[in-house]
Amino acid sequence: MTSHGRILVINPNSNHEVTDGFSQMLDPLRLPDGPDIECMTLSEGPFGIETQEHVDSVTLPLRRIVVERQDVDAFVIACYSDPGIAVCREATGKPVFGIQESGILAALSRGERFGVIALGPKSIKRHLRYIRQLGLEGRLAGERPLNLSVEAAEQSEAYPKVLEVARELVEADGADVLLLGCAGMTKHRVPLEDALGIPVIDPVQMATAQALTAVLFDVDGK
Amino acid sequence: MTSHGRILVINPNSNHEVTDGFSQMLDPLRLPDGPDIECMTLSEGPFGIETQEHVDSVTLPLRRIVVERQDVDAFVIACYSDPGIAVCREATGKPVFGIQESGILAALSRGERFGVIALGPKSIKRHLRYIRQLGLEGRLAGERPLNLSVEAAEQSEAYPKVLEVARELVEADGADVLLLGCAGMTKHRVPLEDALGIPVIDPVQMATAQALTAVLFDVDGK
Amino acid sequence: MTSHGRILVINPNSNHEVTDGFSQMLDPLRLPDGPDIECMTLSEGPFGIETQEHVDSVTLPLRRIVVERQDVDAFVIACYSDPGIAVCREATGKPVFGIQESGILAALSRGERFGVIALGPKSIKRHLRYIRQLGLEGRLAGERPLNLSVEAAEQSEAYPKVLEVARELVEADGADVLLLGCAGMTKHRVPLEDALGIPVIDPVQMATAQALTAVLFDVDGK
Amino acid sequence: MTSHGRILVINPNSNHEVTDGFSQMLDPLRLPDGPDIECMTLSEGPFGIETQEHVDSVTLPLRRIVVERQDVDAFVIACYSDPGIAVCREATGKPVFGIQESGILAALSRGERFGVIALGPKSIKRHLRYIRQLGLEGRLAGERPLNLSVEAAEQSEAYPKVLEVARELVEADGADVLLLGCAGMTKHRVPLEDALGIPVIDPVQMATAQALTAVLFDVDGK
Amino acid sequence: MTSHGRILVINPNSNHEVTDGFSQMLDPLRLPDGPDIECMTLSEGPFGIETQEHVDSVTLPLRRIVVERQDVDAFVIACYSDPGIAVCREATGKPVFGIQESGILAALSRGERFGVIALGPKSIKRHLRYIRQLGLEGRLAGERPLNLSVEAAEQSEAYPKVLEVARELVEADGADVLLLGCAGMTKHRVPLEDALGIPVIDPVQMATAQALTAVLFDVDGK
Amino acid sequence: MTSHGRILVINPNSNHEVTDGFSQMLDPLRLPDGPDIECMTLSEGPFGIETQEHVDSVTLPLRRIVVERQDVDAFVIACYSDPGIAVCREATGKPVFGIQESGILAALSRGERFGVIALGPKSIKRHLRYIRQLGLEGRLAGERPLNLSVEAAEQSEAYPKVLEVARELVEADGADVLLLGCAGMTKHRVPLEDALGIPVIDPVQMATAQALTAVLFDVDGK
Repeated sequence: MTSHGRILVINPNSNHEVTDGFSQMLDPLRLPDGPDIECMTLSEGPFGIETQEHVDSVTLPLRRIVVERQDVDAFVIACYSDPGIAVCREATGKPVFGIQESGILAALSRGERFGVIALGPKSIKRHLRYIRQLGLEGRLAGERPLNLSVEAAEQSEAYPKVLEVARELVEADGADVLLLGCAGMTKHRVPLEDALGIPVIDPVQMATAQALTAVLFDVDGK
Repeated sequence: MTSHGRILVINPNSNHEVTDGFSQMLDPLRLPDGPDIECMTLSEGPFGIETQEHVDSVTLPLRRIVVERQDVDAFVIACYSDPGIAVCREATGKPVFGIQESGILAALSRGERFGVIALGPKSIKRHLRYIRQLGLEGRLAGERPLNLSVEAAEQSEAYPKVLEVARELVEADGADVLLLGCAGMTKHRVPLEDALGIPVIDPVQMATAQALTAVLFDVDGK
Repeated sequence: MTSHGRILVINPNSNHEVTDGFSQMLDPLRLPDGPDIECMTLSEGPFGIETQEHVDSVTLPLRRIVVERQDVDAFVIACYSDPGIAVCREATGKPVFGIQESGILAALSRGERFGVIALGPKSIKRHLRYIRQLGLEGRLAGERPLNLSVEAAEQSEAYPKVLEVARELVEADGADVLLLGCAGMTKHRVPLEDALGIPVIDPVQMATAQALTAVLFDVDGK
Repeated sequence: MTSHGRILVINPNSNHEVTDGFSQMLDPLRLPDGPDIECMTLSEGPFGIETQEHVDSVTLPLRRIVVERQDVDAFVIACYSDPGIAVCREATGKPVFGIQESGILAALSRGERFGVIALGPKSIKRHLRYIRQLGLEGRLAGERPLNLSVEAAEQSEAYPKVLEVARELVEADGADVLLLGCAGMTKHRVPLEDALGIPVIDPVQMATAQALTAVLFDVDGK
Repeated sequence: MTSHGRILVINPNSNHEVTDGFSQMLDPLRLPDGPDIECMTLSEGPFGIETQEHVDSVTLPLRRIVVERQDVDAFVIACYSDPGIAVCREATGKPVFGIQESGILAALSRGERFGVIALGPKSIKRHLRYIRQLGLEGRLAGERPLNLSVEAAEQSEAYPKVLEVARELVEADGADVLLLGCAGMTKHRVPLEDALGIPVIDPVQMATAQALTAVLFDVDGK
Repeated sequence: MTSHGRILVINPNSNHEVTDGFSQMLDPLRLPDGPDIECMTLSEGPFGIETQEHVDSVTLPLRRIVVERQDVDAFVIACYSDPGIAVCREATGKPVFGIQESGILAALSRGERFGVIALGPKSIKRHLRYIRQLGLEGRLAGERPLNLSVEAAEQSEAYPKVLEVARELVEADGADVLLLGCAGMTKHRVPLEDALGIPVIDPVQMATAQALTAVLFDVDGK
């Protein structure tokens, strides 16, 4: 119901399957009489965001959406590179959440040192630069690559590889909380938690929950 | 409804007015069919937690509650010194949130550098030590004292002083997001936001929202 | 002469006067038989780069130039926000220098703690985030605003204000080397050095000198 | 002799053998006409301090001793988790030393990077959090576990394992000074030094020496 | 008595009054049957160590003493710039203490954040570089100059100025422990402590005490 | 030509072959009508600088040269330990560059994290202390030893070992830019770049280029 607010979760790539995948995983946040949680796919985005060029190609389209969608109360940018987060925040007084930032912040209250399961080495280099920008490198246990594409990492077949990398983060790097370093790995979250016995954080869920929090206090809390 | 989970927000001091004050401010998180949010007062706690002795006197009582309350799915320790957070986390596999930690983490996604409105200089010294422990000192703009007791800081009459300190944090220290450094200052949050035009974070609200998130994904999300 | 290499210094805003201003200040680097130093204005750029939107609007145009200009051996992005530096570096194996990064690195060998003279508070916020990303915040004495537009800061009339801010960085913040936080303040460099007796760094000069170094060793040094 | 001052070294666990063990190793600090060095066992303490619950269970008993023992001039808390150090310091104007803090500070003047020999992984997690709180993580080479109980680690039979872990800290982690991460490993100190040729620090000895220093200057030095 | 060891405290400047001044203040460490504490003046040193040239002029003379004095068990370099500490440590396996390093380490167990009373701005610049080298800048509250020469700072007449600077470190910078930033200010220690009610550290006393500790455990403790 | 300025590159050891080796590699910086680049050998220096004693033995001789050579406009100290850099900077208002500092600063604009190829473990310990002093440890990927003497490292025969260590820095430590940690390894630079496909920095070239930049802007640029 509009009167209870609306959250827009934007998948900056044009792969509808990724959007559908995480939308379903956000159902627990779709509350009776709570804010609408709308998930959209950025049609002009690349099919996957794997390079800095991909990142930079979506910043202004994301900004345009943030400006145009006056009916929205909080935004989530659902790509682990947090593309366009600075320009979107500049464009609106409404809260804008990036899933890498939100995921790391959520991880920090569930463990001493966080480990990140990334797709590949290039994205790790980009993430480390961003973690330093956030001033949060002091709690990073490590980030390790699956060496898989987004499409492959989403599949159930990827789970053994995901588990292997997760174990290395725990055993070799000393992580006691794990973070999925991609918007499309949600389905591995619960199996990993069950296997490892430590919290595993899905960043889309966490960023959307933070948006929900912001909306609940803005709309009803004043 | 138990089947939807239960969050227990514990006020470690024995001042019921503080508990009642923040409980009311948590109403936006009390969702239809959502988890119960129960607020309790630690009857054996001191009337206010103002010293390290007060902090250390409540750690084991808090642990006992965490162990005994098997009906609870997530805990919030609603004192800005985060008393007993380590021992409570050790005692349970369930999520335990401390309001200082949760408040800072929430602030970090709403601004570049956070400022904290504290009660007095002694609590600032304790907080700075803890912020260093959290590895989050790189984003701290500053922490400044009201030089008021908890009881005084809760009153509407305190607002002009709160606003004055808030302005110093923004103008002299460069904060672009503010954090209320006490469980009892919630009522100043919206007026401060309106006056300053930047986000103002209430730590009890944020820690409870994080507990809500954890419960929603545990209970319904698997 | 092409056989001795070519450096392209790109002004990402469309203000030709800024380009002309710094081009003239690069004459000491135009060496007989040395690399050509070409300065160009990004015609599709905004008239000044003052917001994150301005920054993000030039990243892909800059990348396009880097890809198209096969005759160039090293690039300089001559805007203090270092727009597009990551995407340009990804697009080419050739060296790409950003003037903020290069200016800070040059300052670090001329003093213990550097102070930055910035245009306004918004750019300071953007710069501080970037300095943290570079991992160089440990040597920052401070950054202070002129509260002037680019156009005003370029004028000789601005010098008294520039000097005033410079003195504050030295006397209140403890800087022993200063950095001009904008591509258009070069003309104030020598007067400031003479007045203060400490090194004053122009970032366009330093980034272009670093490009020159890279070209000299690539072309002749192997 | 009371007129020369008294140091109280408190073993917060109830294992008298540990107390006797380190008391003997403090003989070099028992000087003719120097302060008395009294070692006591906290009878209400757990038999070993291995969990956060153990830590939190002794904080107020330690505070009580600090308040009651008016005849004492300086206190040492002889458990490597430094339990109750904040509350004891709050309770008295007299110096209170914790052996982890004192041991690390002593190590920092004997090498570039310190390595810690710990009992097990859980204590390492607790120690790392504390080292961050102390702001001293920049000089830590590493901390590695013996995977032994306190009782086992005290025995001469443990030496080969202690030596093996010590060598890993030196060879793999780059430590050039070692710290015994437990109050009960003193007897391994000299053999380790002889075997490795680098300083090995016993934290009880160092904390007590710091207490001695404080007393000597308080009592005689004014 | 030689059989109990010998500590050599070297004043690297040639001002005998400074040596005599601190020697007297070390009497509390001259224990019956304890190590001899010998204080010597470096005759070829400059009259005061006020510049980097002074510092570098004494490094090899200090090394020579360390090598020649085979009868000594531990050395203290009693100048707050810690001249020659690296080269002296390289030259011997015996412990060598520098008073700045030892003073800071001692301060860290007596307060959260330390303030330093320095002679002048140039020495502050040198000290800050060294504190960064030690990795201890995270606990520095501030360092402020007396703007006095060594000779002037030693006099009782300097006390009002010393107290004024000390108060600024406490009130403006948040120091809760103070460090005398020169070998010749010992006499102000007790009056400052009495006036301010917080610990005031004399670095010569602390370095010599650390040397005493090292000797006691080397000679008697094995 | 004197009117175009003069750079003096001082080899602080007395090995003329090292001086001749790097002088030749500086030819690309010897520009028509540009500053003279003079390379000299410190005749009173040790044959190689391998210990702290060697470092400290050349500081005052270097200072003397800096003071005496009034015809020089900028100095380079061409030993990777940057001996005497503080005292030389104190002695002159002219720019003085140390090759370790300059090399690291150059590396920071060519990659995210730098790796250093060092001669041996002792020099690594000295370098790490200095990197901490520079405040640049946050971008260090690692430093690894060749375990070769200077003389051996200069030879073409050393290349396979140099390449092996370089690969470890890239593959195990995550370096994406490499720095040659000695004044005598220049000849390996281009082969390493060709083999690894990432920038490899020679510190003598970079420090001299920075000196050239300083002279060009001092002499012609005002």
